[in-house]
Order: sequence, then C-alpha cells, then structure tokens
Amino acid sequence: MIRVENALKMVLSDIRVLDSEPVKITAALNRILAEDIYSDFNIPAFDNSAMDGYAIKSIDTAGSSRRTARIFDAVDTLKAGDVAKKIVKHNQAIRIMTGAMLPKGADSVVMVEDTKSENRCVEIFKEIKKGENVRKTGEDLRKTEKIIGKGALLKAAHIGMLASIGIQKIKVAKMPKVAVLATGDELIDLGKRPSPGKLYSSNTYSLCGQIKASGAIPKELGIAKDDAAELERKVRSGLDCDIILTSGGVSVGDYDMVKSVLARIGTNIKFWRVAMKPGKPLVFGKIRGIPVFGLPGNPVSSMVSFEIFVRPAILKMLGRKRDYRNEVEAVLEESIAKKKGLKYFLRARTRWEDGSYVTRTTGAQGSGILKSMALANSLIILPEEKEHIKKGEKVTVWFLN
Amino acid sequence: MIRVENALKMVLSDIRVLDSEPVKITAALNRILAEDIYSDFNIPAFDNSAMDGYAIKSIDTAGSSRRTARIFDAVDTLKAGDVAKKIVKHNQAIRIMTGAMLPKGADSVVMVEDTKSENRCVEIFKEIKKGENVRKTGEDLRKTEKIIGKGALLKAAHIGMLASIGIQKIKVAKMPKVAVLATGDELIDLGKRPSPGKLYSSNTYSLCGQIKASGAIPKELGIAKDDAAELERKVRSGLDCDIILTSGGVSVGDYDMVKSVLARIGTNIKFWRVAMKPGKPLVFGKIRGIPVFGLPGNPVSSMVSFEIFVRPAILKMLGRKRDYRNEVEAVLEESIAKKKGLKYFLRARTRWEDGSYVTRTTGAQGSGILKSMALANSLIILPEEKEHIKKGEKVTVWFLN
Repeated sequence: MIRVENALKMVLSDIRVLDSEPVKITAALNRILAEDIYSDFNIPAFDNSAMDGYAIKSIDTAGSSRRTARIFDAVDTLKAGDVAKKIVKHNQAIRIMTGAMLPKGADSVVMVEDTKSENRCVEIFKEIKKGENVRKTGEDLRKTEKIIGKGALLKAAHIGMLASIGIQKIKVAKMPKVAVLATGDELIDLGKRPSPGKLYSSNTYSLCGQIKASGAIPKELGIAKDDAAELERKVRSGLDCDIILTSGGVSVGDYDMVKSVLARIGTNIKFWRVAMKPGKPLVFGKIRGIPVFGLPGNPVSSMVSFEIFVRPAILKMLGRKRDYRNEVEAVLEESIAKKKGLKYFLRARTRWEDGSYVTRTTGAQGSGILKSMALANSLIILPEEKEHIKKGEKVTVWFLN
Repeated sequence: MIRVENALKMVLSDIRVLDSEPVKITAALNRILAEDIYSDFNIPAFDNSAMDGYAIKSIDTAGSSRRTARIFDAVDTLKAGDVAKKIVKHNQAIRIMTGAMLPKGADSVVMVEDTKSENRCVEIFKEIKKGENVRKTGEDLRKTEKIIGKGALLKAAHIGMLASIGIQKIKVAKMPKVAVLATGDELIDLGKRPSPGKLYSSNTYSLCGQIKASGAIPKELGIAKDDAAELERKVRSGLDCDIILTSGGVSVGDYDMVKSVLARIGTNIKFWRVAMKPGKPLVFGKIRGIPVFGLPGNPVSSMVSFEIFVRPAILKMLGRKRDYRNEVEAVLEESIAKKKGLKYFLRARTRWEDGSYVTRTTGAQGSGILKSMALANSLIILPEEKEHIKKGEKVTVWFLN
C-alpha cells in the first residue's frame, strides 16, 4: 500500500499540460488562461473626472471657502465621451461629468456639491489640490503591464478587464476529455427495470458530474460486463481521451479483472492500493501515455478517490499551478476512532460559529452511503498515524465546492 | 439614502420564484431542484456483501479462532449481479463477492482474509456476529424517504443519488433571463478603435459573467447613447426578461437620465441611492412586475452592486432559501479609515494562516480599478457606524466564488 501523498505525487509527475485553444471572452468564464495578457492601453486611456463638477486650475482656488468663495467663468460643458474644444484659462471653469476627459489647462475637478452656479458663473467654496477628483491616465492599468497571468481561472472581473483593453479573443487551456467506464455484471443502465441482484450504474453519473465540475468534458463509455474481452474493447474506446476512468468491476478479488485487463493492453501499473479510507483499492497506470484510474466501485469511494487524485490531475492538465480548495482547521464535534496506517477522508458539514469553524460528519460513513456525500460541504482529513480523535480536538478540513 | 439591508429587503420582497422545467439528470449539475425527491427503492435494494468472503450462518462460527478453526462446505460462488440458487445450511458457506446478494439461509459474511479454502472446504478462523459485513436493505436510502429537497443546488453526489434510484428526469428552476444595457455616449463596442474620450463597454462583459456565475442567462441589449428615446427603446427590448440591468449613463447628474426614462416608461422607483461604497448611486424599481436595477457605471461599483443586490434576487428567483456565501471573521492586516454612515465593501484577499483568517485589501480601492476585483477572493464588510478600523482588529469577510 502506498501513502496518499506519494500516490498523488506519482499521479501528478505523469501529467502534462494540454495545448491551448482560442475562445471569445464571452465564452471564457471559468476557463483557464493559457497565455500572459499584457495591456496595449493605459486604463484610464486619458485623465478624466471622477466626479460631476467643474474642471479648473487648482491654483485659482487658493483661499476659497464658503465665506470667501472665488468666482469662475463657466465656459463650456463636457459629458463623458466628449472632447473639449476649449482650454481652461485662469479663473475659468468647464462643467464636467463623471468619466469625461479632463480639458487642457485644467489640473483638477471641484465636486458640484462644493459649488454654486448662476448664469455663466460658478462660485467655488473650497481649496482644491492639484489632481483632486482626477483619474490619471494609466492609474488602473499601465500600458505594457501584465494584467492576467497564465494559469488564472477566469472570473467575471477578468472578463471585464479583458474587455476594457479591447481584447476579444484569448487562449485558454483545452478542456481535458475524460472517459468513464462502469464495470460489473450487477450494473444496469437507467431506464431499465432492476431485476434481483442488479443496481443502477450510478457512479457514471456522479463521476461525469465531478468531471464537469473540475473543468473537463466527460465521455461515457457505458457499462462493461465482467468479461475480459468486453472490458478490453471498451477501455480501448477511451484511448482518444486524455484520462480514462474505470469504476468497480471487482467481482473476483479486488480489482483483479480491471487490473489484469489493463496490464494486458499495455498499461504500466504504478500502484493499485492506497492507504486511505474510503478508496483503498485504486489502480493507477499509464497506457500509451494516457493516465488510467481504476476507481473503486463503492459510490463514495469512487467520488472521494476522484477528488483526491483525478481532480488534481485534471487541474494540472489545465495548467493550474495548485489546487485552490480552501483548507482550514475546525473543532471536531464528535469523537472518532480510526484504523492506524490509513488516511481518512470523512464527509462532513463544516460551519463558522462564534469565531471559528466547527465540523461534524454527515452521518454514517459507509462507503456506499452517497447521501452523506450529498450532505457534505467538506471532508475531514485524519492523518495515517492517528487512532483516536476526541471531541473538541482541531482537525484539518477541506472544503468541497 | 437607504441602508444596504433595507434596500436588500425591499429588492427581495419583490421577487417571485420562477416556474420549473424538466431536465435530464445529465444536464442538472449546478441547477436548483424545484421538487422534493422521494426514493421508490430501498438502497441497497437487497441485503448484500460488503466484502469478498463467505456467506454463512453466524451461529456456526461460535468458538472459531486461528487454533480452533471450524470447517465449512463451500457449496457455491456468487458474483455481484448473481442470484443464489442454493440456500446456506448449517456448516455450509457460499463464496460471495462484494456487492453480491446475500443468499438465503446466511446472515453474515466472513472476510476472505479470515478464512483458508482447500478443495470444497473452507476453514473459518473467527467468530462472526450476526449481520457482520452485510449491507442491509434500505441502509443507505429507505423507500419513500425524501432524499433531496426542493431548493437544493445539485452537485455531483446528488446526480449520482438520483441515478441510483433510477430517476432520469427532474424538475429544476428555470434560469432567469437577465437583460444588460450599457448606457453612455463615451462607450464603444469591442472591435472598434477607441477615439479620444471613448472607452470600451467593459461592464457588459463583467455583468454577463456574473449573471452566468449566478445561474442565470444574460441577454445583451448593447449600448444606449445618452438619448432618452434610444434609452427607452432599448430598455423596452429587455421586457421579455426576468430582470433588467442598466449600467452607467450618468452623464448629466447621477442617474438622472436612466432614472427619468425608467420613470417615464412606468417604472415604480423604490430607491435610488444606497448608503454604501462602492455603489452609492443605484436605482431599483419595477416595470410591469420586472425588477430593474440601474447600476452605477464605474466597473467595480457595478460588480459590487451586482453581488449585493442582483445575485440574491437571482437566487430567490431560482428558489434558493438563502445565499450560500461563506461569511467569516478575519484579522485585518492594515488600518482603514472610512466615512461614517456608509457600509464599505472592500476587495480583499483572505487566507487561512496559523489557525485563523487574515485579510488585506487588494491594493487601491478606487471604484474604477477592476484589477483589485480580479485579485480579490473576498469582500471585507465594514459597518455603517465605524470610522476607523485598526490593523489587527477582526472584520467580517465574505468569500466570492
């Protein structure tokens, strides 16, 4: 049995970043940027007003107050989008709206609240500093500045930034294609009536959901019966994908059939048992350079193994630098006994209460009990060497999203 | 000026849950369930083996140990998916694989590790309790049990659960359609060259990203110039949507044109200034029952106003019971001065360090500076009554996702 962190290291050492593809920025939400983005513009592109008010020479307001107001000639009006036709001279003011380009001659803007206008004159009640209420050219983004780095997960603010510098298309990482093959004589497809001893192939559905949630594209390969030839044929049909997952099919000894079929078609098996619970039986290898995971058949083991090993592999293919899951400590609300030597991943509900996190398991932790996974917002991680964890102790918690 | 929490209450009191629509479970990830789901099955549907081993009568193992092994007749083998043809009698054992249906007569399973088989016999080295290594019918889900409630955000585990009870289609909340209209003479479309004083209409892009990230569908209405007739025509083109957003266009006094056009076409204006920063100028009203938000034109004000007001409105239309954002406390790493009377929402990077959260702003907080929003993973929320917050104080932090 291999330890979880060694198994993960082995998985990731074998993963290469996929090629990029161009997409429109309107289709780029939640994709991973595959290039560094530099700005061709200054943002703002020009000095502009941060307020509705009057553009003036600040020096002309020296000594201004409510009682000693200075009077200026209001010579023009500028809306956002306008270009000034006049230059601001001493003791002149141009009415200016938020976002409008600062006219030549002016070095600051006085807020409309600090003025009073009458006919073509405006009284100014306040001393204004040079640059006051002016957004300077390049204040937000400077020309040639790197604005978003390769590997970033693109959120709404990034899309807005790209638009603000006129970028319509960017390179993002291709989404990995992940094949999913369910195995086992006991499995039936949805839509069929289950006869005694049979059950629905539900792992396919939870795995496809996890694949999508990780930013990849699932390819369903259906169900393979416990038959070496069929298993081989169906595994081969996934060789156009970037990752192959098999689920279960452990009817004659743990994983014997999946493992032996994988070996026969040339898979270089790296490990096949991991010191963890749930999810101990887990085959990992490479076939023609494609990572293959033989996931356990129990619904929860399957999902947890995916989170621990397959998701990081997908993220690495996408070019992400690290896993962005939130890892925190929480106070355990119950006592837990565990087997020494195995790392535990317990489904848990973690909440913020009175200034710290508290956590408890979501009921029975049997590896078939998917309900406890659906109720969980997190996994409690208990290290190999621990045997008893008491109520009130701090434990490491990993948020699922 | 209205306080943030009163404004939000006013927004939400006006929002109705949308109708539902049927979708296949394979298309249901991240959708909101619009019905309660009950199980038609027990899961497991039958008593089955949790281990590879032998199905036996537990009473026959009384007194068994390594030194005093009991010998059983191995009369059959069952793989997962098989139905037993034989009944287990006293001192008989049936070889059974994980997941296979427990044969009649047996009440427990002994793990293969606690046995030794030779010819048609098997030695059992351990006393087995009744029910040991058996997954009982209905242990995970009981027939008629409610398994997922209306309003749940469907994750991979839910999709797997639905598949496990044979459900192929479910009702989910319809995705709200949200119209986005940018306003302002200074705005130009992507693809055009910006002439002096002009800038790209980037808010449309960040808002469309936020709409998608909230589970809704954006409808772009383009750019309206600062012209009442054009503004009116374009706002009307959004009346087939569930929410209408306008952005900016505040060139003659804050929001005057948007506000007056909205009023003219029959919008019942509920409030138009909120005591917050960024985002103070914010019009909210209803036109023919459709909520309309006149968002400020500054890029960050626009995004923050969306997070505080529009996203909760979308979630309510989707039938979610509450906003599932993570709200925690964090130690502030810098001192902050603010204006009394306004609630502040500062873009921040919050991280877990040595057992608690620490947070700092992501640089300059000017409302045009989108970069600080892109770098943020959270908002620091500073209450109205505060004026100075010192380095080392605890503040409320709201995670963005």
